[in-house]
Amino acid sequence: MRDQLSQTFSALADPTRRAMLARLSQGEANVSDLAKPFLKTMSLPAITKHLKVLENAGLVTKTREAQWRPCKLNGTPLKDISNWMEHYRIFWEESFDRLDAYLKTVTAKRKPKGKRHARKK
Amino acid sequence: MRDQLSQTFSALADPTRRAMLARLSQGEANVSDLAKPFLKTMSLPAITKHLKVLENAGLVTKTREAQWRPCKLNGTPLKDISNWMEHYRIFWEESFDRLDAYLKTVTAKRKPKGKRHARKK
Repeated sequence: MRDQLSQTFSALADPTRRAMLARLSQGEANVSDLAKPFLKTMSLPAITKHLKVLENAGLVTKTREAQWRPCKLNGTPLKDISNWMEHYRIFWEESFDRLDAYLKTVTAKRKPKGKRHARKK
Repeated sequence: MRDQLSQTFSALADPTRRAMLARLSQGEANVSDLAKPFLKTMSLPAITKHLKVLENAGLVTKTREAQWRPCKLNGTPLKDISNWMEHYRIFWEESFDRLDAYLKTVTAKRKPKGKRHARKK
């Protein structure tokens, strides 16, 4: 069986499934409401399969109501990803710092040119 | 072609690839150094295939050195994941707040019992 972190990453590796999570982040929804935006481009079994992947990863749970069982977003697996990511934060923050440093150099180089033009007038 | 975010999530959905990133987070490494820990359980082609997935997702880049081309971790795709995750932060923080509230209730219930025992003495 796949480890939990791999299962969560894998579940998120699809734009349809991420769109489903985006919908659920606005509030609970039943399967037919959740399926509606995708029915033009996808079959219902394909949609329910995507939903099943999210459920298996623990990202979506079905609450128990009398008449219907709405789907709900569960953020706990995302917390695990966030914890994993934390170790690597320095790598993207560093990249952006470097980019920032580079842009500052470029801006600094441009400014003296502007002054030279001003002197010519 | 798969979208960038899906490709990054997919690349991270494997413990071998995450272990490779963990190794590269300690510093640059060439392919043979990177492969070493996995050679007992995996063939070299399987290992290089994993590395290729990381490269295609932009998580690993090969630097250009005269004699060898060491692999380097590139954090930029992780920044995109972090941005995507930010929208969902409330869902796991909320869960933990609820857990926290629950634990406080449990602790609060235990305390009066302690007091009752004290009165009996």
